[in-house]
Amino acid sequence: MELKVYVDRLSQPSRAIVIFCKVNKIDFEEVGIELLKGQHLTPEFKQINPMGKVPAILVDGKFKLFESHAILIFLASACPGVAEHWYPADPYRRAEIHSILDWHHSNLRRGSTEFIQNTLLAPFFGRPLNPQAAAEAEKVLSSSLSKIEALWLKESGQFLQGSSQPSIADLCLVCEIMQLEFLGETDRNRILGPFKKIQRWIEDTKNATNPYFDEVHQSLFAAKAKLQMPS
Amino acid sequence: MELKVYVDRLSQPSRAIVIFCKVNKIDFEEVGIELLKGQHLTPEFKQINPMGKVPAILVDGKFKLFESHAILIFLASACPGVAEHWYPADPYRRAEIHSILDWHHSNLRRGSTEFIQNTLLAPFFGRPLNPQAAAEAEKVLSSSLSKIEALWLKESGQFLQGSSQPSIADLCLVCEIMQLEFLGETDRNRILGPFKKIQRWIEDTKNATNPYFDEVHQSLFAAKAKLQMPS
Repeated sequence: MELKVYVDRLSQPSRAIVIFCKVNKIDFEEVGIELLKGQHLTPEFKQINPMGKVPAILVDGKFKLFESHAILIFLASACPGVAEHWYPADPYRRAEIHSILDWHHSNLRRGSTEFIQNTLLAPFFGRPLNPQAAAEAEKVLSSSLSKIEALWLKESGQFLQGSSQPSIADLCLVCEIMQLEFLGETDRNRILGPFKKIQRWIEDTKNATNPYFDEVHQSLFAAKAKLQMPS
Repeated sequence: MELKVYVDRLSQPSRAIVIFCKVNKIDFEEVGIELLKGQHLTPEFKQINPMGKVPAILVDGKFKLFESHAILIFLASACPGVAEHWYPADPYRRAEIHSILDWHHSNLRRGSTEFIQNTLLAPFFGRPLNPQAAAEAEKVLSSSLSKIEALWLKESGQFLQGSSQPSIADLCLVCEIMQLEFLGETDRNRILGPFKKIQRWIEDTKNATNPYFDEVHQSLFAAKAKLQMPS
């Protein structure tokens, strides 16, 4: 399978896909699409993903797919050698992973994206910051983190649903939370500080996917420094 | 498999699941959870779905699952006799269905839900209407309808991706759009009027799943009359 992966490592779902491919030794070509330069909106990229968003993939020069969860499920299913724990065949375990990933869209992802946009990134995309929207997003974000701790992080295992090895849901959600590294320390500590199980889970997911996790997240820290955001 | 399905037929994802079960002759018990009476927020229901949302299912008295897309995928995979076209085994077709369903969350669903909430339903849940939020939601909704027509409704087939038979993605998205029946005629015509392919697709999905589609949607029309909304 010839695989092109269109990503910007500053985007959390893009990072999840690059880490997944590297950890699972999937042969792929990474095509950088720089969001801050508007490269996702070019006619050329819209030939790959008409929605104008990263990540997207092109398989064997003809099959195009967007939406990161769908991409991860496809790669876990179609690429030989991906370990079972990433996307278990058991219909019950698989259903729980789908449920967490579906929940992600309108909860953790929505809270995280809107908070970061409205406290920090909006001006880089020509929009004003919106403190009221940021305050509402923080509520969604904190409530989402609280639900992850209460429902899915158990004492019995390091990963979601008490598993001893990560699934694609761990990778997607942890990459989402890592986006908070864009924030200044005060905001980040206020939001993440109360969630000790989440902090441990991030470390466990990092350890399970290193050296790739750290390598792929370097872009985030480099961009933060370049954009002169407060640490 | 003993299946309990917790739904409110006024909720669009609930309707998709009830229609799916009936069309596929899946044996199930429907448990009504009335949103307008706050039954989704009771401690009893939160034992089934701690998120306090419908739909949710309980399988064999012990396996609990929420999020409608995850539920449909589970039922299509675990129940014998569900026709292949609902959730094809082919990894490429399946990936496209996942992609559409993932896209649904932050686009069509978000636009539809927020428009209806902010023009009509919010007071029934103790919140004020918000015309500015409604205007923004209408943009998301119209853009989503436009993308469905441009990308997924082709001349070659009646259903998404040019298929000749519906998938779970057709059912989810059409049930979402049917929620616009809550609106007055002026709003509904302004929003749906320009989209002829969408209108035909709704009819085709209805015909492919009747008499259950009409039967399950009766609750929507009855509630609209009862809530004394303009026709």
